[in-house]
Amino acid sequence: MTRESDLISALRRFATDPAARGLLDDAAVVEAGGERLVFTHDMLVEGVHFLPDDPPEDVAWKLLAVNLSDLAGKGARPLAVLLGYCLAQADEWDARFVEGLGRALRAFDIALLGGDTVAAPAGASRSLGMTAIGAAESVVPSRSGAAPGDVLWLTGTIGDAGAGLAIARGRDGPAALLERYRAPMPRVEAGQRLAPLVTAMMDVSDGVLIDARRLADASQVAAVIELDRLPLSQAYLDFAGEDRAARLAAATAGDDYELLFTAPHEHAAEILALSDGIGLPISRIGLIQAGSGLRLVDAGQDVPLPRRLGFEHAR
Amino acid sequence: MTRESDLISALRRFATDPAARGLLDDAAVVEAGGERLVFTHDMLVEGVHFLPDDPPEDVAWKLLAVNLSDLAGKGARPLAVLLGYCLAQADEWDARFVEGLGRALRAFDIALLGGDTVAAPAGASRSLGMTAIGAAESVVPSRSGAAPGDVLWLTGTIGDAGAGLAIARGRDGPAALLERYRAPMPRVEAGQRLAPLVTAMMDVSDGVLIDARRLADASQVAAVIELDRLPLSQAYLDFAGEDRAARLAAATAGDDYELLFTAPHEHAAEILALSDGIGLPISRIGLIQAGSGLRLVDAGQDVPLPRRLGFEHAR
Repeated sequence: MTRESDLISALRRFATDPAARGLLDDAAVVEAGGERLVFTHDMLVEGVHFLPDDPPEDVAWKLLAVNLSDLAGKGARPLAVLLGYCLAQADEWDARFVEGLGRALRAFDIALLGGDTVAAPAGASRSLGMTAIGAAESVVPSRSGAAPGDVLWLTGTIGDAGAGLAIARGRDGPAALLERYRAPMPRVEAGQRLAPLVTAMMDVSDGVLIDARRLADASQVAAVIELDRLPLSQAYLDFAGEDRAARLAAATAGDDYELLFTAPHEHAAEILALSDGIGLPISRIGLIQAGSGLRLVDAGQDVPLPRRLGFEHAR
Repeated sequence: MTRESDLISALRRFATDPAARGLLDDAAVVEAGGERLVFTHDMLVEGVHFLPDDPPEDVAWKLLAVNLSDLAGKGARPLAVLLGYCLAQADEWDARFVEGLGRALRAFDIALLGGDTVAAPAGASRSLGMTAIGAAESVVPSRSGAAPGDVLWLTGTIGDAGAGLAIARGRDGPAALLERYRAPMPRVEAGQRLAPLVTAMMDVSDGVLIDARRLADASQVAAVIELDRLPLSQAYLDFAGEDRAARLAAATAGDDYELLFTAPHEHAAEILALSDGIGLPISRIGLIQAGSGLRLVDAGQDVPLPRRLGFEHAR
């Protein structure tokens, strides 16, 4: 149990509106005049979610990307954002952040609606908050709809951002992996197109293992992940190797912002066709069973769960 | 020109959606399926907006109150909030904050919809963000609708919170004033009932003089404030005195979260009746003229503007 999870448990008492989904989901869903609006708020704190020497432009991109990733997990089309910005004591950082934010907003065609800027006390870490507002066309998937027999799927590849973080911290490695850490690409289009096909969906911010267990817990089912089916990029394999340790490292690394979802077998062909259509790999990585918890399998053999399933720092 | 205002100017380039009101207003207004939703995001930073030894329960109340005050200025009915919470290194502070937030949410009958909690680095100042979502019944007043001939009005009394801050910092004074600083009361009902009657409205967070000038600037008119009409509480008069210096101190102090608005003369009787009906004083404090800027008058005589009109730290 982390202090964050204690705090969230305490806050849950006030999240009595059904729109809050008991704070168990990545976003809130509000019906307004026949439209279904999706809200999410994510923060980035210097020294926790980004490094003091990460380029400010990339921090701006990431702030938008992590929020859009939450919307993607709910199949929502992003509409607009509000920004909470703590000015620290460096004009150039601010100017570069604004530049990067503009580029990111243009890339996703999103409006900045408003927000707040405050001057942080001298020496304070930067703390950035963003609220993203999206619109959902139809059903909004939660974490809790997975059913026994469903297939467990993952978009893209994992482990790249974790490797990128190691590179940002000084290890040698390719720029492509660093880029995956600094400028993640939220799966906005995939999320919208997958939403009608899935039984549960969420974005992977803290690691596939920990997030799969959260999905299983919320759905009151067991998740089985086949380690040898985890989609790894060639850059990752070159960087980290192909052994089980490398696969486990990828499965417990955060910041990939891929989508993890479950769907009945019958939708498999449609999901693979959709993957082809949008040019984004989507892989079966396991399945859902009756029961509870998480099981890991490698080449048909059970594998003990690593002690640490992913990051616990975030929600 | 402050660094904040430079930053906001830079951000304004991305606020191209009409809903953003060019970042010139206190809130964004979004039409969704026939409903008019109002969004605001305000932050509180330790050492800037609250003192390290302010009671955590009161900080929670204030975080909600400042956001609801922005909604009140737009005449919106509060629906829900999202919370961005930086855990610092003190369990008791967090527990008391949560307690106070629950009390505040219940007091205003508002749902917590979601948000994010992050662990701040050791020694970091607390930084709290909140997004509030409201619904507006009809027209949403902006800052920019004031017209020459309008009367300038203010709800409640001013200066109390500024006196309360001095008391929080160690001056002797009554608990009632300290309470106005620590637990401001957003004028939610007044805002909703006034909205159809006003030409421009905003909440007073940084001081009546500076906020009146902002309203005048946004409306491209001049505001005249009659110092001797400023509504001061008996507690404030006892604390600060009745002379011009005391009135100027009240007019340039922040954190009162009253509503400042303009309305045509014809609505005066209705506004005063409304004031009686909800038991909240509403006072004429001046008028709007053609021209620009701010003029101060005391007992019919022009008074030079003080060098500092209010707080510049916030929006």
